Amino acid sequence: MARSSNGESVFSRVVRILEAFGPERPVLGVAELSRRTGLSLATTSRLVSELVEHGWLERGPDRRLTVGMRLWEVASRASPALGLREAAMPVLEDVHAVVGHHTQLSVLEGREVLFVERLSAPGAVINVTRVAGRLPVNASSSGLVLLAHAPAAVQEEVLAGPLESYTPHTPTGPGKLRALLAEVRRTGVAVCPGFIDERATGVAVPIRLDGRVVAAVSVIVPNDGGAHAQIPLLQAAARGIARAMRPGQE
Amino acid sequence: MARSSNGESVFSRVVRILEAFGPERPVLGVAELSRRTGLSLATTSRLVSELVEHGWLERGPDRRLTVGMRLWEVASRASPALGLREAAMPVLEDVHAVVGHHTQLSVLEGREVLFVERLSAPGAVINVTRVAGRLPVNASSSGLVLLAHAPAAVQEEVLAGPLESYTPHTPTGPGKLRALLAEVRRTGVAVCPGFIDERATGVAVPIRLDGRVVAAVSVIVPNDGGAHAQIPLLQAAARGIARAMRPGQE
Repeated sequence: MARSSNGESVFSRVVRILEAFGPERPVLGVAELSRRTGLSLATTSRLVSELVEHGWLERGPDRRLTVGMRLWEVASRASPALGLREAAMPVLEDVHAVVGHHTQLSVLEGREVLFVERLSAPGAVINVTRVAGRLPVNASSSGLVLLAHAPAAVQEEVLAGPLESYTPHTPTGPGKLRALLAEVRRTGVAVCPGFIDERATGVAVPIRLDGRVVAAVSVIVPNDGGAHAQIPLLQAAARGIARAMRPGQE
Repeated sequence: MARSSNGESVFSRVVRILEAFGPERPVLGVAELSRRTGLSLATTSRLVSELVEHGWLERGPDRRLTVGMRLWEVASRASPALGLREAAMPVLEDVHAVVGHHTQLSVLEGREVLFVERLSAPGAVINVTRVAGRLPVNASSSGLVLLAHAPAAVQEEVLAGPLESYTPHTPTGPGKLRALLAEVRRTGVAVCPGFIDERATGVAVPIRLDGRVVAAVSVIVPNDGGAHAQIPLLQAAARGIARAMRPGQE
């Protein structure tokens, strides 16, 4: 691939530009993009023009930039995220209607949890996740479920790395975390009271496809000791989602 | 931007590779990608390696490729599609629960309707849309609503172009379409019995933000003459979604 004088490929620079946008920075000017990516203003400007031409970025009336609908479309229409979400959606809606709190669908992406879907309700307990957002695996119920069934190499990498703490209840010691993961594998569920916020408890179960854990379904409920009541519902939901994911077997 | 001997930029070739994937072709091998994009096997192979390196494509155990979670994440987390969807979701769920049929959220993208969200139900009437899928504006209720409020240039372009027909009821003549668009502007709703499938009627209303139509909300119900009963619900839903899109005014 064509490379600049410092050896970086054109594509890597495109990735840097797109990754500069985020939920907190959905609109950026070219100068700010240049600053954030470390690319020269000329390079940024040239790449931005081409991204705009393909609809991957969109220029507003004030000439500032947002991620384009076209990029979302290209990324979504053939994405495994969307297939998973499509299969899960009717079940997630049922869980959401019954529980009345945040209901989430997530996958392991690198060493973090990536949330593919989140259904919320006004007045529901606090929840820091968002769709296409991430959380550390050690802090969230979904993360513990996914990590518990991840390849040993991924588990060791997480256990060796620095582990983020949100509250005094967030498990950050490798010994504590190892015990938790073993418990998740034994019980088939992760219950995390106050791990991210004192007011909330996450409850997550694995979604298994052909014996492999491919995703997690979870609810975030008030931290009032009642979280365990959600486990049977979630376990049935996980089975329903897995069934919907098997083509031709619904 | 760096260009190949035929003047095509590296980025354009990356776009061609990613656009080769679709709902009907979610998994492709390098040879097939090369054939579909018209790029040489060497170029395809080199670009694919870089895309895999960044997680934009993923290689399965059989070495075949799918669109990566990372691309979906980058495209989604700062996307206006997701902001719109997030604001609309609670209302869409309510509409879906009450109507019991497909409920959709869409925007105008180029000269077509792009579906940002679709909630379905088992046993609901037939529906050809999917999330991140498109439909021609002339054939769908959402399309007519969005086109009716699009810039004059876009309307003229659509009216001048070839118009796809699905059933004998699909409006394809420019005169007929002009009359329909005027009616949509006058009544604030598009009702499309059998335009795409004889068994289904689409009903769509515009979502207005600061006087501008930014999206459409629609339901697909059986073509049994009862579709008009959904209009008040949809109109209230469109207002609710617009309110949720205005930051700090909920």
